[in-house]
Amino acid sequence: MRNVYLDNSPRIDALHKWLQACSTNIDYEQIPVESALHRVTFEAVYAHNSNPNFQASAMDGIAVKAYKTYDASEANPVELVKDVDFIPVDTGDPIPDEFDAVIMIERVNTLENGNVIIHQSVGPGQHVRAIGEDIVTKELILTANHQIRPIDQAAMLAAGVLDVPVHVKPKVAIIPTGDEIVKPKRDPERGELIEFNSTIFKGYLEEWGAEVTVFDIVRDELHAIEEALAKAASSHHFVIINAGSSAGSEDYTVHAIRNRGEVVLHGIATRPGKPTILGKIAETPVLGLPGYPVSAWLALDWFAKPLVYRLRKLIPPQRPKLHGILSKRVNSVFGSEEFVRVKIGYVNDKLIVTPIGSGAGVVMSLVLADGIMTIPPEREHFDSGQEVEVELLCQPEIIKNTMVGIGSHDLSLDILVDELKLRYPEKRISSAHVGSMAGIMAIDRGECHFAGIHLLDPETGEYNHSYVKKFVKNTPVSIVHFVHREQGFIVAKGNPKNIQGISDLMRQDIVFVNRQKGAGTRMLFDYLLQQAGIVPSQIAGYTREMFTHSSVAASVAYGAADCAMGIRSAAEAMGCDFVPLCEEKYEFVVSDAFLASEQGEMLLALIRDPRIKSRIEALGGYSCRDTGEIKRP
Amino acid sequence: MRNVYLDNSPRIDALHKWLQACSTNIDYEQIPVESALHRVTFEAVYAHNSNPNFQASAMDGIAVKAYKTYDASEANPVELVKDVDFIPVDTGDPIPDEFDAVIMIERVNTLENGNVIIHQSVGPGQHVRAIGEDIVTKELILTANHQIRPIDQAAMLAAGVLDVPVHVKPKVAIIPTGDEIVKPKRDPERGELIEFNSTIFKGYLEEWGAEVTVFDIVRDELHAIEEALAKAASSHHFVIINAGSSAGSEDYTVHAIRNRGEVVLHGIATRPGKPTILGKIAETPVLGLPGYPVSAWLALDWFAKPLVYRLRKLIPPQRPKLHGILSKRVNSVFGSEEFVRVKIGYVNDKLIVTPIGSGAGVVMSLVLADGIMTIPPEREHFDSGQEVEVELLCQPEIIKNTMVGIGSHDLSLDILVDELKLRYPEKRISSAHVGSMAGIMAIDRGECHFAGIHLLDPETGEYNHSYVKKFVKNTPVSIVHFVHREQGFIVAKGNPKNIQGISDLMRQDIVFVNRQKGAGTRMLFDYLLQQAGIVPSQIAGYTREMFTHSSVAASVAYGAADCAMGIRSAAEAMGCDFVPLCEEKYEFVVSDAFLASEQGEMLLALIRDPRIKSRIEALGGYSCRDTGEIKRP
Repeated sequence: MRNVYLDNSPRIDALHKWLQACSTNIDYEQIPVESALHRVTFEAVYAHNSNPNFQASAMDGIAVKAYKTYDASEANPVELVKDVDFIPVDTGDPIPDEFDAVIMIERVNTLENGNVIIHQSVGPGQHVRAIGEDIVTKELILTANHQIRPIDQAAMLAAGVLDVPVHVKPKVAIIPTGDEIVKPKRDPERGELIEFNSTIFKGYLEEWGAEVTVFDIVRDELHAIEEALAKAASSHHFVIINAGSSAGSEDYTVHAIRNRGEVVLHGIATRPGKPTILGKIAETPVLGLPGYPVSAWLALDWFAKPLVYRLRKLIPPQRPKLHGILSKRVNSVFGSEEFVRVKIGYVNDKLIVTPIGSGAGVVMSLVLADGIMTIPPEREHFDSGQEVEVELLCQPEIIKNTMVGIGSHDLSLDILVDELKLRYPEKRISSAHVGSMAGIMAIDRGECHFAGIHLLDPETGEYNHSYVKKFVKNTPVSIVHFVHREQGFIVAKGNPKNIQGISDLMRQDIVFVNRQKGAGTRMLFDYLLQQAGIVPSQIAGYTREMFTHSSVAASVAYGAADCAMGIRSAAEAMGCDFVPLCEEKYEFVVSDAFLASEQGEMLLALIRDPRIKSRIEALGGYSCRDTGEIKRP
Repeated sequence: MRNVYLDNSPRIDALHKWLQACSTNIDYEQIPVESALHRVTFEAVYAHNSNPNFQASAMDGIAVKAYKTYDASEANPVELVKDVDFIPVDTGDPIPDEFDAVIMIERVNTLENGNVIIHQSVGPGQHVRAIGEDIVTKELILTANHQIRPIDQAAMLAAGVLDVPVHVKPKVAIIPTGDEIVKPKRDPERGELIEFNSTIFKGYLEEWGAEVTVFDIVRDELHAIEEALAKAASSHHFVIINAGSSAGSEDYTVHAIRNRGEVVLHGIATRPGKPTILGKIAETPVLGLPGYPVSAWLALDWFAKPLVYRLRKLIPPQRPKLHGILSKRVNSVFGSEEFVRVKIGYVNDKLIVTPIGSGAGVVMSLVLADGIMTIPPEREHFDSGQEVEVELLCQPEIIKNTMVGIGSHDLSLDILVDELKLRYPEKRISSAHVGSMAGIMAIDRGECHFAGIHLLDPETGEYNHSYVKKFVKNTPVSIVHFVHREQGFIVAKGNPKNIQGISDLMRQDIVFVNRQKGAGTRMLFDYLLQQAGIVPSQIAGYTREMFTHSSVAASVAYGAADCAMGIRSAAEAMGCDFVPLCEEKYEFVVSDAFLASEQGEMLLALIRDPRIKSRIEALGGYSCRDTGEIKRP
């Protein structure tokens, strides 16, 4: 039973069609004003009493009967009798009914008997804080459909309004489905996938003002899914089901919705996010979200967010937008709106937008994303160097405080990233891991502040220097030494296949896993192969590329490969054995302009900090004996 | 015991001095990831397990041993034996250890015995979702000092991290003080002021991430205040005390702080907000806030917000800013930073910024404010027509959907404002009540979409028409009739002073309360006085001006005045009696450009809606017999 997608609808059209088909009516409840923060008024709120509801003095002085002062002038001083014609008042004191004006203390001469002399007349109301100066009985305080802020609570309380009718919070049900998913736990069994999508949904839905119920995981069984859907739809304003929304043979969601209600649309013209279902059961809207977290996150934003805000009678907030320069060409499919996770940062006063290449299954790509760039359906690509618009996912204030690193990854770099944030919470390093050569190119093009590299020059045996000289022409840079580290073979615990040298990799029983082209480690490996006279086709797994030391170490640790080339700290982190081959230099190529800036000085001081050095050396396989030394290339 | 202000410090300097003097250290706690939303990491979070922690198929097809395929080609098909050389897999299925690659189902020919024939070799890892594709064991997931979003929760759960160390929430104590203040209630006694400031503080502090304790109200007694301060400071990260922060004889706060700790600063160079105290008890920061809610609200924002964010190791979010044209000159005091509440809206594509004139005691001015404009200390005024920057207090999206009304107030206008919001939650009427003449001038200058007016031409006995003809020269407008309404004298219930006509107002025992110059009701009253041959000085209270029908009615209802001129609905709302004098027309002068726009059509349709008419007529004193008629002047 394979499905076909019903639709390939533009997402805005899809949203409108769906919202029109569903009910977005919602009940109200009367609640105490004290607990009404962020709730939305169901109807207009009018003042119960005035504030203040008495006349108060607006000055320190005396309260008087105005008509008794009418004859007073410089030429004709008038004496007022204490407790008969006046009483003393401080600012804020109530003014008794028989008095109607206040004379400032500075304008009064007090006699020995306590009476006063005045030289000026005053009119009724002078220096009197009027009844209802703030709020008058039956005055409109808040309209209907107004989201209550602390100041609105205060105004209601000031006006003697203690309860307020508000729309109920939209009740949203989340139904996770799938045979392979399990509740969050440590060390899932092989074949088990941790169910974390419902946590994503719940968090955002609550931020948007919904009250969320997460159902128990439902197995991939049509009837069970139908039952859960029907139960949820009858007791909630909105139901989200995840996943099984695509067109595979075990994707029951669309059938379950159709059997119990109506599928309004199946398939949205977006990438990722296409396998989304918009439906309803009775009048209750039902949203079938894709299983991949990035797709699900996007479709939640497109469809659940406007629905929740509509149920609340509010408009969804827009994300801040920035314009920047795209650092890398991005391809897109004609007819599909493409959503690209990006990292951003200011380099030389230009906002540089760098796409994150990961697939829709990679949660970490959203953790690391600073924004989302949209490629419209009529475009097949955006060019490198093009100005693009980015919707921000992070606080706008942090962007100007971001130091941008592009290049090779090292576990010691993570420590630097963490330590910066630890000491300067308002600062941040944004670091993209694309390998040493890509880092060198990026700094040459002015797209980053620094690049982590480790590149061996086979002719001189020296690291980094000659590459910077050869490839960095357009940006004045220096080399800041970061760490010495051990490179070698990462092998399983106990080295069961007894891998000792590079020639072992040619063995039929050995599967290798490689790093991507342009990575320093890949270049080192190719150099070692060449020296040993081995050609790549002799090595099983040579073509399988991964992007970090950690990934290749994980492949070895979990038995997916027998050997990888990488650093000792990655091997130790994964509990692998390590066959050392050489020591290399992992260094930063830093733009001189950045190095001279306040942020650059901050970073350099941090690199030289003894605490960072000891954290790094504790990882194993590192020496910080030259850390922080600067060399001009 | 009068105080003197110690200081007149620029607020940024004051903030820095205070933060330096106090401790902003804070503890941490280990909490479940599921409840860690919006909390801030205390230290870096590393992955416990990889995600996925097994190899999974990325395609529907067969899992194979790659080396068994190496000889396959178009010329040399290879047969693979079922369950030995391959097994069938769907997307997402785990791949058993003995297999290391996947061939897509489309590339496979199945034989009758279940074996398959392939014509291509594959390398290890092809179409295999790698172990750790998303997250690798011991990989950095989050740095220290990172505010946890739903997606971060998901990444932690995916990596088997179930608990996370976070900074504790800053514990903030709020101590309300004052002899006159009482807990919120209906109908406070004369002399009682409802204590609502702590509700304002609590709401914003919670939005900023604090955990708030509101103390019982402490009376104006030095020792009691000291005790409360000492108790709060010993068990909280931050203490706010309100009020008694100024320099009056009963303002104990500064003494109490000094007796138990240290006053870092007393007096900030701002208006409003000057009477603010920055102090500490032991290392705990103490903030003494002014009693007036607008001053307190501002000082909370300047001092409490950055402190709470610093305690959380976050940066405070900035409010969005817009640039607009100031519609009215605003004066300021040299040497003081002035903060002006403003209303804003787009009229003819210009953002018009209109200051709200109310005092710092008026909570409603903050409810109605769209933004805050700052006049720097070195300026003594901002001119009308000047471009100014405004910090937004409302959702930026609503500004473009705002219909701007300036002019006379009427209770029927409130119903229109409410009904618009009820039917179109995304729209809004922003309405400033400055009187009919000011409304006419505003629409002439292009500063509003419509102006509510009721202006009698004494020569013709006609309403509005001749004024529009005479004063509106620069904007093409129409008149949209809204309501007929009764004008007359508002007198106390039962008319105890037996006020029957205008000549009664000259009596010695009658205190009148007037409307402001330019108000239609004031012009009507002046016209009636003139007709009766009465001069203003003959009327006690003539000089006492209020800005709305409701305010003057409240003055009469609470006994602060005996008589006011106003509309029947205001009298009835306040439970007053009403002596009718005439019927008048309250109409809208509407710019033709706005009337032809989509929003203008929407407003006109709303004005003509029968439901609105019946809501208005239910107020008393209104006739809607001509509502919605359009007249060209």
